[in-house]
Amino acid sequence: MRTKILICLLAIFSVSGTIAQSQYEKDKEAILKVMADQEEAWSNYDLEGFMEGYWKSEELKFFGAGGLIKGWQGTLDRYKRSYPTPDDTGKLSFEIVDVSQAGEGGYTVMGKYFLERNAGNANGVFMIIFKKIKGEWKIVADMSCG
Amino acid sequence: MRTKILICLLAIFSVSGTIAQSQYEKDKEAILKVMADQEEAWSNYDLEGFMEGYWKSEELKFFGAGGLIKGWQGTLDRYKRSYPTPDDTGKLSFEIVDVSQAGEGGYTVMGKYFLERNAGNANGVFMIIFKKIKGEWKIVADMSCG
Repeated sequence: MRTKILICLLAIFSVSGTIAQSQYEKDKEAILKVMADQEEAWSNYDLEGFMEGYWKSEELKFFGAGGLIKGWQGTLDRYKRSYPTPDDTGKLSFEIVDVSQAGEGGYTVMGKYFLERNAGNANGVFMIIFKKIKGEWKIVADMSCG
Repeated sequence: MRTKILICLLAIFSVSGTIAQSQYEKDKEAILKVMADQEEAWSNYDLEGFMEGYWKSEELKFFGAGGLIKGWQGTLDRYKRSYPTPDDTGKLSFEIVDVSQAGEGGYTVMGKYFLERNAGNANGVFMIIFKKIKGEWKIVADMSCG
């Protein structure tokens, strides 16, 4: 009898473990898809398309050595200023270092970015926060360092 | 009648707004207290005291240009290596730029750090994630750039 209860408990834990794992895996997959779309848009010099990954809100926060930029439009304007031509944007690729939950419904992604460019390659590190907004994963906060 | 309903609704929204605001303010105050304690401990060359602000877990993540360090002990060891003497640590002060909710039960803090030292001043920017763990706000993820 005890063995049966034990087997039953093990089965329950095993199933709930699998469900928890697959929710994380599912979220992670959706988040990485957003980032893959960003790589593609950026590499086509489509900065508006790249910005689709960000929360279209005045509450979006973009932070780095240059200080804090608030809002989707301000962040796009900053990208346009910093990367005025396709020679400046080049080909973007991300290397994902870590994806972790940050509170319920939020994730942090840590990683490295690489720009392959005629104007000279560039790279840096970032930590971004994703939240699910109206059913879609969006970056709500970004810190990047070159 | 309509006016009364309107006044009533406005009163309800106003009260719930105040409650939401004060929860944020309360959390923010508690988080900033942790960071003030960190400034004090660091400035007394008490790196273990400074590390009290971090989640004592193998899941703690510390990220920067040098890559990812996992775990509380690994992060402490890294601080000890990088700041071996009180001349290296000096006096720490934070400038808080933004405190925002990151999912339920999590907050991001963006800011700048300043080290006043005989060995030469140093400064940089950071984004950290706080979660409430066993009733205490702890840093669970840190990205810092010098």
